Amino acid sequence: MSSDALAELSAQLPGDALLVGADAVEAYRRDRALDPTAGVPLAVALPRTTAEVQAVVRWAAAHGIPIVPRGAGTGLSGGASAVDGGIVLSTERMRDLRIDRTTRTATVQPGLLNAELKAAAAAEGLWYPPDPASYEICSIGGNIATNAGGLCCVKYGVTVDYVLGLEVVLADGRALRLGGPLIKDVAGLSLTKLFVGSEGTLGVITEITLRLLPAAPAPRIVAAWFASIEAAAAAIAEISTTIRPSLLEYMDRTCIDAVEDLLGRGLDRDAAALVLGGSDDLDPDGRDVAFMIDAFRRHGACEVAETGRAEGEALAAARRAAIPAVERRGRLLLSDVGVPLPRLGDLIAGVDAISRDREVTIAMLAHAGDGNTHPLVVFDPTDAVAAERAELAYGEIMSLAISLGGTISGEHGVGRMKRPWLREQIGDDALEIAERIKLALDPDGILNPGAIFEAR
Amino acid sequence: MSSDALAELSAQLPGDALLVGADAVEAYRRDRALDPTAGVPLAVALPRTTAEVQAVVRWAAAHGIPIVPRGAGTGLSGGASAVDGGIVLSTERMRDLRIDRTTRTATVQPGLLNAELKAAAAAEGLWYPPDPASYEICSIGGNIATNAGGLCCVKYGVTVDYVLGLEVVLADGRALRLGGPLIKDVAGLSLTKLFVGSEGTLGVITEITLRLLPAAPAPRIVAAWFASIEAAAAAIAEISTTIRPSLLEYMDRTCIDAVEDLLGRGLDRDAAALVLGGSDDLDPDGRDVAFMIDAFRRHGACEVAETGRAEGEALAAARRAAIPAVERRGRLLLSDVGVPLPRLGDLIAGVDAISRDREVTIAMLAHAGDGNTHPLVVFDPTDAVAAERAELAYGEIMSLAISLGGTISGEHGVGRMKRPWLREQIGDDALEIAERIKLALDPDGILNPGAIFEAR
Repeated sequence: MSSDALAELSAQLPGDALLVGADAVEAYRRDRALDPTAGVPLAVALPRTTAEVQAVVRWAAAHGIPIVPRGAGTGLSGGASAVDGGIVLSTERMRDLRIDRTTRTATVQPGLLNAELKAAAAAEGLWYPPDPASYEICSIGGNIATNAGGLCCVKYGVTVDYVLGLEVVLADGRALRLGGPLIKDVAGLSLTKLFVGSEGTLGVITEITLRLLPAAPAPRIVAAWFASIEAAAAAIAEISTTIRPSLLEYMDRTCIDAVEDLLGRGLDRDAAALVLGGSDDLDPDGRDVAFMIDAFRRHGACEVAETGRAEGEALAAARRAAIPAVERRGRLLLSDVGVPLPRLGDLIAGVDAISRDREVTIAMLAHAGDGNTHPLVVFDPTDAVAAERAELAYGEIMSLAISLGGTISGEHGVGRMKRPWLREQIGDDALEIAERIKLALDPDGILNPGAIFEAR
Repeated sequence: MSSDALAELSAQLPGDALLVGADAVEAYRRDRALDPTAGVPLAVALPRTTAEVQAVVRWAAAHGIPIVPRGAGTGLSGGASAVDGGIVLSTERMRDLRIDRTTRTATVQPGLLNAELKAAAAAEGLWYPPDPASYEICSIGGNIATNAGGLCCVKYGVTVDYVLGLEVVLADGRALRLGGPLIKDVAGLSLTKLFVGSEGTLGVITEITLRLLPAAPAPRIVAAWFASIEAAAAAIAEISTTIRPSLLEYMDRTCIDAVEDLLGRGLDRDAAALVLGGSDDLDPDGRDVAFMIDAFRRHGACEVAETGRAEGEALAAARRAAIPAVERRGRLLLSDVGVPLPRLGDLIAGVDAISRDREVTIAMLAHAGDGNTHPLVVFDPTDAVAAERAELAYGEIMSLAISLGGTISGEHGVGRMKRPWLREQIGDDALEIAERIKLALDPDGILNPGAIFEAR
């Protein structure tokens, strides 16, 4: 790549919108997955407008240069790993937000943080439900790219369920508008839903129209401490197939311990697992809360109690802190495997067995109510043997989930780190059909090459 | 087409699975839209299994013969109009059903009726929410093809929100399996959601795995009678942007009159409009019910009352009977236009103006809470002048919706009848991208040619 070409791009962007040089681009080479194979980009573009994104994409298309779209860099699958000689297109400066009470929607640029949208909605008495544990630091654009989930999704659905409209810059630089502040619209193919979860491989999302709901009541939260992970899994299975909790979360002893080290909340380090169940319906008899308490007890919980509101929120915050807390114990390989609900116990037990067989620490936390778990493989990156065992365990966890009828990713995306296991899960035919769509929309393969699909 | 080719197909199917001859195929030429341009098919295939569907598709692909997939024939946009020289592939004999309580899912063949699934789920204490007004006679496969909505969708979402897995026979005869009884799965592109709403243009759906919910409480229903359609629309706008009703339906005087003629329920024929609002939350104070009553009164309803359960169900049934009731008044052109919620009043008033300008009866009913309306253009098919005025009004209603930022179809699909207006709504770029996907998945254009896309 000649510096002439970069100068040509620079001339089309505001003065501070292009970072070049090894030092400047270093911070944009990896997302939170810390992909060891991440490349070194030519430059980092920091557009503020759709027109500036179009300029970057048109320039890249003309020169055959790959583009890696990037939100807040909190991705956990290497979807935003830079590629050698490519451009990282960061949406961090695209943060406009407009709330329309009359349509009960928000229209935002992709760089806006999830927490910023939640706060703006709350100021209008409204609510944007999807709540990744990283909601304070992750961007809406990244949430769209991965179809992010979260804690309340067990009742309120995932990101795609709230996306009514998109603006997408295509591989040829056109800005495509899809949908709008309409609740129902089936005219033509569901392109909006196809772009959600496509991890930047089909286009660059530049604007999103999201459905908002009236604020929900605060949930009543029950905390149950178990001496056995099997007992906890059995209680979860019964609850999640009987009632409709607004939250049903799991963390094991390794997580409890790490969170306690980080936050010092007085969690019980002797417990094998903590399960949090929430209910936000308006039932004055609290039937679902009573059902959860009873189910936890019948399945042998050592201690079960409905929490006060402050304590419940503190426990949910402890759950959300689990990944950063465990991260302090070493380098992580973050899994995001999901299984059909009745197989959750088998998955938890199987991961435990992998941990013992490979002699590697695996902390287990889960959005248990929808069968989506995050086994965190922890290792010392300076110990090559340990790193290899961790890599093996990481792959075995995905193969285990697939063998249980599950998925390699419930909400983080495939990115680059899980791509080697995608075919094993979805099969040759589904991968071939997805590749046809990728080829139809990005014939030159410049959009996020290596994410989901092998780079061409 | 030689009779040799048909004999070749016949040899691959059970003895009674192929209907040939003008008389036998007549009943399969049109769906409920009564498309006047429907063609005459070569034959009608009635497979029972995925393998039989594959045999039909492989045979059609080999001979370049178009296939029109058909569910129960209740479509309202001509999505199942037969094409000359093609095959109608009816799924009416594919009715297997399996409910799995442990995953809280149903796995069904496409010909199963929506009502049959609801009943089977209810027998297990479970609930399949999507409820098209035609739920007693429409099939799940057709619901998937059009991403059907219904009355409860204002709170519980539409068909796509319940689809966890699909089996689809592709244009080359391969059977593709997507997803399964997993609540969260983001591995690879969202192919499942792309096939939902694709109206048989990308593949033939042969099996569906659907999420079920615990049975919901019966809603409390408020009925409000208005002397002015503007007042009714204003009340709806306030309710739908403030609370979250489980039902918010509208019907005008023409519908009320037609339903009263058909069912004799004692509806008030003098009212300009009837609005039904429902709430199924568990609030013992009934705040949402009280809010609706208050909003209806403040906006000038003549009569407002919470109904008893039997009366509420009778009124909802009256609403569901509106299309068949109005159908007795003449031939219908069924619209399905939607707009952003604050434009609902403009849409209703604009349709009223079209009715007056074109001197044609247009009955108006609506899933008002999500801005989705069904203006029914009624005309005497033996009167050529009236038929032409009706056609003009039908098109003007779609152009009006588009001018208000809306859609030509909220839940019925584009089919063949609305295809001429699709480009006006979604634009050249979105249509071109959709066509690329269609070309990628059905390169020879044998799957439902003329629906959504122009036949190649």
